[in-house]
Amino acid sequence: MTDIHDLTRRLQRQSDSKIVLYVGDGLGGLPLKPGGKTELETARTPHLDALAQRGVLGMSIPVLPGIAPGSGPGHLGLFGYDPLKYDIGRGVLEALGIDFALTDRDVAVRGNFCTVDAEGKITDRRAGRIASDIAAKLCEKLDKITIPGVEVFVRHVKEYRLVIVIRGEGLGGHVNDTDPQRTGVTPLVPQGSDAASQKTAAILAEFMRQAAEVLKNDAPANLLTMRGIAKMPPIPRFEEVYGTKAGAIAVYPMYRGLARLVGMDILDAGTTLEDQMACLEQNWSKYDFFFIHFKYTDSTGEDGNFDAKVKRTEELDSAIPRINALKPDVLIVTGDHSTPAKMKSHSGHAVPTLLAADICRFDGSREFGESACRVGELGMFEAKYLMLHALAHAGRLEKYGA
Amino acid sequence: MTDIHDLTRRLQRQSDSKIVLYVGDGLGGLPLKPGGKTELETARTPHLDALAQRGVLGMSIPVLPGIAPGSGPGHLGLFGYDPLKYDIGRGVLEALGIDFALTDRDVAVRGNFCTVDAEGKITDRRAGRIASDIAAKLCEKLDKITIPGVEVFVRHVKEYRLVIVIRGEGLGGHVNDTDPQRTGVTPLVPQGSDAASQKTAAILAEFMRQAAEVLKNDAPANLLTMRGIAKMPPIPRFEEVYGTKAGAIAVYPMYRGLARLVGMDILDAGTTLEDQMACLEQNWSKYDFFFIHFKYTDSTGEDGNFDAKVKRTEELDSAIPRINALKPDVLIVTGDHSTPAKMKSHSGHAVPTLLAADICRFDGSREFGESACRVGELGMFEAKYLMLHALAHAGRLEKYGA
Repeated sequence: MTDIHDLTRRLQRQSDSKIVLYVGDGLGGLPLKPGGKTELETARTPHLDALAQRGVLGMSIPVLPGIAPGSGPGHLGLFGYDPLKYDIGRGVLEALGIDFALTDRDVAVRGNFCTVDAEGKITDRRAGRIASDIAAKLCEKLDKITIPGVEVFVRHVKEYRLVIVIRGEGLGGHVNDTDPQRTGVTPLVPQGSDAASQKTAAILAEFMRQAAEVLKNDAPANLLTMRGIAKMPPIPRFEEVYGTKAGAIAVYPMYRGLARLVGMDILDAGTTLEDQMACLEQNWSKYDFFFIHFKYTDSTGEDGNFDAKVKRTEELDSAIPRINALKPDVLIVTGDHSTPAKMKSHSGHAVPTLLAADICRFDGSREFGESACRVGELGMFEAKYLMLHALAHAGRLEKYGA
Repeated sequence: MTDIHDLTRRLQRQSDSKIVLYVGDGLGGLPLKPGGKTELETARTPHLDALAQRGVLGMSIPVLPGIAPGSGPGHLGLFGYDPLKYDIGRGVLEALGIDFALTDRDVAVRGNFCTVDAEGKITDRRAGRIASDIAAKLCEKLDKITIPGVEVFVRHVKEYRLVIVIRGEGLGGHVNDTDPQRTGVTPLVPQGSDAASQKTAAILAEFMRQAAEVLKNDAPANLLTMRGIAKMPPIPRFEEVYGTKAGAIAVYPMYRGLARLVGMDILDAGTTLEDQMACLEQNWSKYDFFFIHFKYTDSTGEDGNFDAKVKRTEELDSAIPRINALKPDVLIVTGDHSTPAKMKSHSGHAVPTLLAADICRFDGSREFGESACRVGELGMFEAKYLMLHALAHAGRLEKYGA
């Protein structure tokens, strides 16, 4: 028995304790030069520092050392799902990212508008980075495509990107990308690697035939390619594996989608951190576990804007008093990965993590930052174990064995 | 090859070095408030501190982060057996706990005396917490039950608790609990989930029929329920996997039982720590590996008595000079889990660990305590790897690969 959830199912203990998981997306950072401070260490974070003094710190490894995760595996790890076991296809993530409510009968596909010449050969894999308003109208046309025996949904994402969902019985998700990853050739033919996926491939081929007809006069977006064709993996529900009723408070659709994927209730988060805190307060009595997602520590890191990430980290800090006022039994502050402004991207660095609870083995931390986390009581741990720490500190786990 | 023992079998190197594993049960603790010291840090432990200065420290995770183990998995981990792989049933542990020498032909069952009404429905699942002297006499009556083809043993444990062992050929251990976990209903019928376990279930049903007859006039203990029906798991012997001849010096039967489970010799430990040290001295030339168990750091923690745990930790310390005088090549001091007085229970916190040997990478530790262990050379490691450290520091492992 080595599956974490076999263990948590067995050891669940009912309790009225409450857990808050407050995620600063891409929280971990880098100093700009040797001897410098990271974004988190530069930020003035009095509330997080006070929390560090009455909690414990550690470093979370999102997937494996050095591996930079996307948002999907980053969050699955925090939710206690081994991101190497639950591999979420790109099509599924793209659908989650636009709040499309996928079912287990769906195959999701990431589509890219492209330009093809008279011979059908691709001349531009991104259709000249077509504007969103034009692409959205093309998606509406494609959404009218019908194929007997299945439902077809086409949704625009952004610029040349779209999502196609095929809903029906017995569809497999193991179909190759049709994007050849280069120009001068035609899109590849979709092929399934098992019987159910062959059925999907045939439907996608029919979709492509009709799409070519629909788009024939819409150059530069006169065709599309397909990537990340996938079904949702069977994933056990959060409440079933942990015995906690969970609500997600996320402003961005991708994170609502990831929370929905593990069976959390999606609460009305509004659009600002203030709204999110109001949502938390309103729903406090209804849930045992709250996932709160703050996006801007990541987006400023992606922009390479160290100072802006510092500011956004201070904003992250500013909400702590409202969370504290609710007296959660366990409050965790962490990130799904690091996004150092210096790198302008997600990185494989470990992620600073703070856990505050009454039964912490207080580790003498004075502030919340990478240097303090490195020598904290939680040590360096794989993110998938964070939920075990959360449940243990909330008194929600029985002893293993007698 | 991920099994630890496949590796140790292959890499065993003969040596005349000696290893002592000195276990303070439930050694890890918690400060009562932020900034405070744990029990171990509060205790005056001059000998352990001196040992820390000529050794290395670390933090052991008994099972997985946050998981509080019982004594069984806690010790199996220290002995190098993955506690998630070797799952010891409660019946087996209960038999080990009264020094019952189980064989691989045995099915062990934890029994609870209960009270049933005229319709056979349970009115008290613990028979009014019947006194030990009365229950012991009832067990003697039940021990006379005979069933053709098998041997039946009934032994009293404490108050309403007893152990039933069925010994015979071809008995399976996969039988449901008959304890319905509530009153107002009759005990459940034992059923086996495979052919061998169906044989066991039939024997247990016959046992129950006879027990009802034997106990009919013994209200409130006029029946019993069964839990944790199990066989010993096949578990490789300590000497075979490590190449060390091991002796166990434990005062309490449970720990002798766990040592016996992995094939250690059980030495005459007497009843006090002084007796245990005398036993160690007398047997020093006969074994390569000694497991010494000290119970009272756990029991005082379970009592929630911080000061008493401090005192018992000082007692643990007091035996170090006698161990040192024997010049073990490797001396390890650790716990099977944490039992913070603050929690009055086993906890999932990591466990302070000290290893002293000539080839330690001395880490500058000044004293043995949780704060020092947090930044020690051994880092944070799963308990199942402790034996690798022990063997390596004893020069008992060959290089892996050329």
